[in-house]
Order: sequence, then structure tokens, then C-alpha cells
Amino acid sequence: MDDQRYIRGMERFREVDGKGGEKAVKDLEGLVPEIRRYIVEYPFGDIYSRPGLDLRTRELAAIASLVSMGGCEPQLRVHVHAALNVGAKRGEIIEVILQMTVYAGFPKALNALYTVKDLFEKRDLKSKD
Amino acid sequence: MDDQRYIRGMERFREVDGKGGEKAVKDLEGLVPEIRRYIVEYPFGDIYSRPGLDLRTRELAAIASLVSMGGCEPQLRVHVHAALNVGAKRGEIIEVILQMTVYAGFPKALNALYTVKDLFEKRDLKSKD
Amino acid sequence: MDDQRYIRGMERFREVDGKGGEKAVKDLEGLVPEIRRYIVEYPFGDIYSRPGLDLRTRELAAIASLVSMGGCEPQLRVHVHAALNVGAKRGEIIEVILQMTVYAGFPKALNALYTVKDLFEKRDLKSKD
Amino acid sequence: MDDQRYIRGMERFREVDGKGGEKAVKDLEGLVPEIRRYIVEYPFGDIYSRPGLDLRTRELAAIASLVSMGGCEPQLRVHVHAALNVGAKRGEIIEVILQMTVYAGFPKALNALYTVKDLFEKRDLKSKD
Amino acid sequence: MDDQRYIRGMERFREVDGKGGEKAVKDLEGLVPEIRRYIVEYPFGDIYSRPGLDLRTRELAAIASLVSMGGCEPQLRVHVHAALNVGAKRGEIIEVILQMTVYAGFPKALNALYTVKDLFEKRDLKSKD
Amino acid sequence: MDDQRYIRGMERFREVDGKGGEKAVKDLEGLVPEIRRYIVEYPFGDIYSRPGLDLRTRELAAIASLVSMGGCEPQLRVHVHAALNVGAKRGEIIEVILQMTVYAGFPKALNALYTVKDLFEKRDLKSKD
Repeated sequence: MDDQRYIRGMERFREVDGKGGEKAVKDLEGLVPEIRRYIVEYPFGDIYSRPGLDLRTRELAAIASLVSMGGCEPQLRVHVHAALNVGAKRGEIIEVILQMTVYAGFPKALNALYTVKDLFEKRDLKSKD
Repeated sequence: MDDQRYIRGMERFREVDGKGGEKAVKDLEGLVPEIRRYIVEYPFGDIYSRPGLDLRTRELAAIASLVSMGGCEPQLRVHVHAALNVGAKRGEIIEVILQMTVYAGFPKALNALYTVKDLFEKRDLKSKD
Repeated sequence: MDDQRYIRGMERFREVDGKGGEKAVKDLEGLVPEIRRYIVEYPFGDIYSRPGLDLRTRELAAIASLVSMGGCEPQLRVHVHAALNVGAKRGEIIEVILQMTVYAGFPKALNALYTVKDLFEKRDLKSKD
Repeated sequence: MDDQRYIRGMERFREVDGKGGEKAVKDLEGLVPEIRRYIVEYPFGDIYSRPGLDLRTRELAAIASLVSMGGCEPQLRVHVHAALNVGAKRGEIIEVILQMTVYAGFPKALNALYTVKDLFEKRDLKSKD
Repeated sequence: MDDQRYIRGMERFREVDGKGGEKAVKDLEGLVPEIRRYIVEYPFGDIYSRPGLDLRTRELAAIASLVSMGGCEPQLRVHVHAALNVGAKRGEIIEVILQMTVYAGFPKALNALYTVKDLFEKRDLKSKD
Repeated sequence: MDDQRYIRGMERFREVDGKGGEKAVKDLEGLVPEIRRYIVEYPFGDIYSRPGLDLRTRELAAIASLVSMGGCEPQLRVHVHAALNVGAKRGEIIEVILQMTVYAGFPKALNALYTVKDLFEKRDLKSKD
């Protein structure tokens, strides 16, 4: 195992995905024991550790991608939390999704706005961010 | 016609899409005479004129969306030029596309990297940006 | 604001989407206060107000699109109601979805047939259309 | 072989797809000898022979589907010719594609408008329809 | 009706899809009375009866397709049962889905792994396969 | 760098993708210097090196995925060569693509059959496989 990359990846993974990502990984380890390493090393240890783009922009791009593909609501939720974790504002997340009406069409974008609305309301019940 | 929105939209449209967008619109006006108004008013006059997100991030999100849907090479080219027009760096565009290996898979992301490589090379023949 | 277009768009919006569309818009206005204007003006005030295609065919085309993209069940429900509102028959809606087995494959089309079956049964509990 | 369905399907296939479809099938018969039967029997002998929807609406729905999936330009061309063959007007085809800006986003719809523009121009060089 | 093909198709359909497929068909017969014939004849009587590829590989390819399109969870469930019915091992199904992280991206593949994990756990409550 | 994984990945990469893959990587190294490592380590060093599925089935699943997403013709070509490299027969590749008429619809599958027909003819001009 490439220890350095894994350690760097885990740091990034914790910073970005937080508890939501941790739970997602844990749930799958019974099925694919190596899944933590796969998710941590390439996406986080390699890609998210590259210096050329800040994490906030990366997470907004991830949200644009998930909305445009459609059918990825659970991942969209994880990445909306992640975007907030790395400094994106709620308003920016809404802007990116709203902009997707232009690129991916109104249905996928409206679908995503409902998902995000629900998520924001639940987050507010606990505390304000 | 909503003059204010159209005027605001045309300004934004010229700032973002430049000559590439102008040519794209002109080519279609014979087929759909209202197409300029449709492209200018909602996407640019409404969405791109919203204050909550800077144009550089909007264009990087557009690129993430186009790569993730696939099959939109002509639009990807327009938006890579657009991203450069509004201040994104080449390296940031490459980062967003490379990140899409994680979200949309290697085939769509590699496809897009070839498109961008070709575009950068042609742009270099004229002048450096 | 372009009053004429908005007024024309609201008429078309009410005619096509009815209560389902109204509820969908209301649910999002807390998140994006301008969402009603965005949904009403371009899609309904511009596109659905164009004279070259009847609303029944437009709604059947919308259903074909939603089934082919997949993952848009809530929007499919809104547009099946909409298609019935503007004069499409149940049999025609079923034909369009069934035809999508050929274009978009059996999984997406069968998915949509289940959604529609469920919707028809609920509609029948209230009244016959 | 189910002769009746095949004969019925071939009639429908010739009526709808004409020379473009015939060429498409011939090109693949060396690779998959049964491809003619597969294309003729289920799509045309079964689905397109169902009485509940006219061929013009079926072809406009096919165009909506192809535009929404993206990346199907050769099939889009075949079906634009087919739509004209079964009585759709050019203006109606343009309306359906333009409407897809709302459902599938501007990039896929604009892509399709370019394809159709090119096709209409080539058709005009031969004769007017 | 093409009796031979239907009979051959029903055999294949029962062998592959088993009870899950039978239920899926029954649920739709009220809506589309011919749906059983459509699902049985072309997909099973024609395609799945072709000699050039074994059923196990066909079902693993079906799973790869469903994961890559996304938004087809109900069909994915049917085909995971089907893959097990025709001799694929659980480990092989997991490998195909995990491989889709490379081709279709992590979100769709992880989505599918959750679906499969849930299905395997329910299957284990009844008996071991 | 994780030497072992890279070495194992390069072996697998050469075995599967051969010259086509090598050229694809080389073309992108000017743009993303680390691209060879990214393509080799996770997809080949991790995933394709897992023992639970043979390379022939992996490549047939890759083809099913690429056909189903659509718009990935260059990658489809690389993977058809790859499938042949690891022991899949031409007939098996055709079967998988033909089967995608059922899952992903006729347009994407026919598109892919044309791509493969063209590739087989070019391969035959050099030598028979």
C-alpha cells in the first residue's frame, strides 16, 4: 500500500466528506473490504490533493456533475454537505444547481433543488451553518 | 420584449462566449429566428446575471456538466474558450475535467481531455493566453 | 419584468401543469424566490406559447424526453398529468412510453410504465378522466 | 419466422424510414445477418403497428428521445427524414428540438438544431419538401 | 403469433428472470396486455436465445449496462437475481459493479453497490445461494 | 509512488490495451503529466488486477458500459481491440452490443455496431485475428 498517498487521502477525505463519507464507506466494507482504500487513494489522495484547484470549486463542480447525470441523489446529498464543509455557501450551491437548468434541463435541476431544500431544512433543525 | 434583460444578457453573452458564441447563434438564426433572444435572455440575462456566483466558477461548473453528460464536444469547446475569457486558467480547466474521471468515469473525462488538448494547441498557434 | 410574457406564460402554465405544477413551484420559492418567473417565462411564456406545435404533442414529446433521460420520476408524474390536462389520452401516453423500449431500452421504459400505472390508479380513486 | 409480423413490419419500415433505413440495415447485415428481422419485427411489426398513436407523433417522440439521450446524431438524421416521410412538417421538428432546451438542456438541443439545419440544407439541394 | 419463438422465449425468461421477472410482467399486463409477448419474444426469444454468448456473461453485461445508465435500481435488482439464477457468483457481480467506478464513475457504481448489498442481505434471510 | 501497484498495473495495461492504450496515454502526457500513473494504477493496478473476474468478461462488461452511456466511440474502439487482445471472440463482442438494443435501446446499439464493423474491416486489411 502507498502509505503516504493513503494518509494524505484520508486527511482530504475527512476534510471534505466528513461523517457522511465515513458512514458511506463503512456501509460497503462488508461487501468490498478494499473500498475504503479505493475511495481514499485515487479520488482523494490523487485528484483532490492536486494543487491546481481549490476544494470549494471542486465540490461545486462535483455538484454540477451529479445534477447533470441524474439519478445520483444519495451522492448529491453527500457532496452538498461536503461543499459546505469546505467553505461553499448555501447560495453558491443553489446557483450551481439553478444554472444546470440551462445545461442539463429543468427536470434534473428541479429534482436537485428539492433534494437540497430537504437537506437544508434537516441541517437547520440541528444547527445553523 | 424585455429590453433590459436582453441588453444585460447580450453584455454577459459577449463577455462570456465571445466570438464563438456569436457564430453559434448566427448559424441558427435562419432556422429559429428567435434563437438569439432565447439564448441571451434566460441563460445570460437571468442566470448568468445573478450575483451569487462568479463567472469563472459558473464556467467551470458548465464544463463539469458538459463532460458528465457526454456527446457535447462542440459546446465543450465553446465553454472552454468561455472559461478562459472570464478568467479561468488552463490548469483549472484541466483540473475540473480530470476530476470528472471520479464522477463521470474515465472514458468521458479522457474524451474531454483530447478535445481540450486540441483546442489549446490551436489557440497557441494564434497567440498565447 | 416582461409582463406580457409572464402573463401569457402563467396562462399556459396553469393550462398545462395545473395544480401539480403550482405545488412544485411553491415548494421551491423559499429556496429560489425567482423560480416561478424562471419556470413561467422561458418554458411557458416563450416555448410553450410558440404556435408551431400543439400542446398535446408537446407533452407527449416531454414524456419521451423524461423517459429517455431516466431518473426523473417526479417530473414524469407532473407531465403525465399535464398531458391528460391538454387532451392526450391515456392510451397515447402509454404508447409513447412503450415506444421508448425501442429508443431508450426496456429498463427505462418499464420503469416509466410502473410510474404511470401507479399514477393512473391513484387518479381513478378520485374520478375518471 | 413470424411471416405476418415481418411483412407488416417491412411495410411500416419502408413507409417510415425509407431509403435511409434500408441503407442502415444493409450496412449491418454482414455483421449480424438477422439484424433486418430484429429491426423490422419488434420496432416496426409490433410497436409502430399499434393503432393507438399516429406515425407523425411517434416520429416526433423519437426525435425528442434521441435529442435527450445525446450522442445519437446518425439516428437523429434517419428519424428527421422519417418524420418528414410520415407527414411531420419541418417547423414541427424544429419545435420539438427547441422544446428540448427546457427538458434536456441547451447543449443537446443546440447540437441537434445544427444537425437538422445541415440536413435541411442538403435536402433542399435536391428538391423541396 | 410466432409460437416457437414465444415458447423458446418463455423458457429462457423463466430460467433467467424467475419469479422477479414474472411479477414484473404481471404488474404491467393490466396497462399493456401485450407486454408479456413483447418482453418474452424479442429480448428472450430472439436475443437471449442466440448461441454466441453464455447467459452468465449476458447477465453481467446487463448489470454493467444498468449501472452505467443509472436510475434503474428496480431493473438492477431483477438482473442481480437473474445473474445468480444463471450461475454468476456474488463475487463476480460485485466485481462488475466495482469495475464501473472506472467506466461510469464512482457515484453510479457506489449507488449500485448499496442496492446489491441490500439485496444480498435480504436473500440471506431466506436462504444461502 | 506505489511501485508494486504501478508495475502490476503496467503489465495489465499492456496486456489489455496494447498499442492503442499506449498511444492514448502518450497523447495526453503533455497536458497531464501524471495521466499515465492515474490510468495505470487505479483502473489496472487495482481493479483489473483483482482476482474475482477474468479479463475477457471485464472487457465485455466495459463494452456494455460504453455502449450504454453513448458518445464514447473512441473508447469503444480501444476496448474492442482490448477485448480481442484478452481472448474475447468477435462474435461475443457483437453479441454484447446487440444485447444492448434491449437495455440501452436500438440507437446506441446500432451506433456501436457501425463503429465495430468499421474497426473489424480495418483490422482485416492488416491480418486476421
